[in-house]
Amino acid sequence: MKIIIDAMGGDHAPDEIVKGAVEASQEIDSKLILVGIETEVQKELAKYTYDKDKIEICHASEVIGMNESPAKALRQKKDSSIVVGSKMLKEGIGDAFVSAGSTGAVMASSLLKTGRIKGIKRPAIATVFPTLEEETLLLDMGANVDSKPEHLVQHALMGQIYAKNLLDKQNPTVGLLSIGEEEKKGNELTIETHKLLKEMDNINFVGNVEGRDIFTGEYDVILCEGFVGNVVLKTTEGLASALFKIIKREITATFLGKIGGLLLKPAFKRVAKKMDYTEYGGAPLLGIDGITIISHGSSNAKAIKNAIKNAEKGIKADLINLIKANIES
Amino acid sequence: MKIIIDAMGGDHAPDEIVKGAVEASQEIDSKLILVGIETEVQKELAKYTYDKDKIEICHASEVIGMNESPAKALRQKKDSSIVVGSKMLKEGIGDAFVSAGSTGAVMASSLLKTGRIKGIKRPAIATVFPTLEEETLLLDMGANVDSKPEHLVQHALMGQIYAKNLLDKQNPTVGLLSIGEEEKKGNELTIETHKLLKEMDNINFVGNVEGRDIFTGEYDVILCEGFVGNVVLKTTEGLASALFKIIKREITATFLGKIGGLLLKPAFKRVAKKMDYTEYGGAPLLGIDGITIISHGSSNAKAIKNAIKNAEKGIKADLINLIKANIES
Repeated sequence: MKIIIDAMGGDHAPDEIVKGAVEASQEIDSKLILVGIETEVQKELAKYTYDKDKIEICHASEVIGMNESPAKALRQKKDSSIVVGSKMLKEGIGDAFVSAGSTGAVMASSLLKTGRIKGIKRPAIATVFPTLEEETLLLDMGANVDSKPEHLVQHALMGQIYAKNLLDKQNPTVGLLSIGEEEKKGNELTIETHKLLKEMDNINFVGNVEGRDIFTGEYDVILCEGFVGNVVLKTTEGLASALFKIIKREITATFLGKIGGLLLKPAFKRVAKKMDYTEYGGAPLLGIDGITIISHGSSNAKAIKNAIKNAEKGIKADLINLIKANIES
Repeated sequence: MKIIIDAMGGDHAPDEIVKGAVEASQEIDSKLILVGIETEVQKELAKYTYDKDKIEICHASEVIGMNESPAKALRQKKDSSIVVGSKMLKEGIGDAFVSAGSTGAVMASSLLKTGRIKGIKRPAIATVFPTLEEETLLLDMGANVDSKPEHLVQHALMGQIYAKNLLDKQNPTVGLLSIGEEEKKGNELTIETHKLLKEMDNINFVGNVEGRDIFTGEYDVILCEGFVGNVVLKTTEGLASALFKIIKREITATFLGKIGGLLLKPAFKRVAKKMDYTEYGGAPLLGIDGITIISHGSSNAKAIKNAIKNAEKGIKADLINLIKANIES
């Protein structure tokens, strides 16, 4: 097993990426290939003691910035770590690709260089949300907009397979994000998608769910169109951040509050850990013909380590072939 | 000025509704008309000392339940408080209508009985969100689904007028909720709506905003399609509720945490007050030819009082005529 890592992607590349890879290498069986500007990656690697049989570097001379136009960057930077990494995945040089680079560029490069699984019309980004109980997988978080019902049905299938095999859910439930529990509540897209899902024998569809059901942990997979998913993701990030700021502001407003705040530091740390995306190992780009994990642009070493461990779990579960088998049937 | 109140609408009707009306009557200039089953409303009113010149009862023999089909309920319950109330608004017997009843039924009754403002194609529900700084008005929160760009432009206009006159914002900014700041980022609807908004001289359009911008307070009005708005609203409610539960669970997990929690009670109360929807006086149904305020189904007396005060503010600002003047131009 070999995992390809974009050493140059993200706000903290290459230092945190390389550090995360070194840490991961001590916990997994796979070999790691760091793709990026060799001198820079080598310089970071030199800071650590690591098993030289498990980490190698593959030189790629260019870097795609976080804010570059994906289409343009792909055309102009053929030797960038993202393009080279997704090509290596296509060629079977590695079994998975992990990148914290520009989501748009990774997506475009995966589509063009690695390619889709035969039969899959549109890939989907799936994100693990922390909840009151267990985790919930949401997809699509913005790989596409204006998706059609048949795309969402494929996303449901892939999300279910991922939840079962990588999140260890038994017979995962799939809910459709809408604005009312009744079958007829929603927009044209959800009403039509609901009909299709109901007819699928191989999807454990439990009906419409609402925004407030995302955080109860009651559902294993929640399906939504990519525009809505992306709005949900960013709204969630924004509200959590605002709430913690408001709480902090009120706590530090009085002397007694400050004392109370000190006593509660361990509790708040546990809350923060639960909400911390770096725990959840990145978001798979499902539907690509090769395991592809997109990590948050601000990923630190821990986030990268967890994404790499996640990638290995996907390889061991034979994720891509499981999806292929289900899409064909 | 007269404000019509649905005395039978909501989970705590008629007791909390009547209590809220009595409390409001002490703080406002308008007369209040409580619409509902006379004996029941009279029984609640009898509990209070109030100015009999300021509160009257209008009998309506039927009640529409929170979970009834709006269309069916409207056909069958012609003497319900919602139908009678919105008819009275149409007839000019009152200048505003406040209801905590079924949102669907209030919406349907307002459309059919009160009617739309001439020129307005679809009404919109607007909701005030608490933020790190000042409040932000979001619309449409689900009055419609599958709205078209021209509907959203009208919503932007109405939201701007409401924010200026009822939320006391000077020259309110309008942002369009999308999945990227760039003009071309989004789905077909937002890209087309963006184009139209840019051309409008009478809208202070500041471009696309993202989910995380809802809670910064940086924007006065955030525009979105009703399905997306409703998902955002419920996601926000769900996350806030889950976060507070997780925080409580972690705080009460240890002895020191419990002590800290006690010390922080006043701070948490201030946070809860900031997040409390009952502070914000209900959501206007903009585009109806008469001020119509929909209150949360779980409204208590305070929420109703604030909704009534809000309705009076709308009457004094001449909200409906302001909208008419802007739509015509």
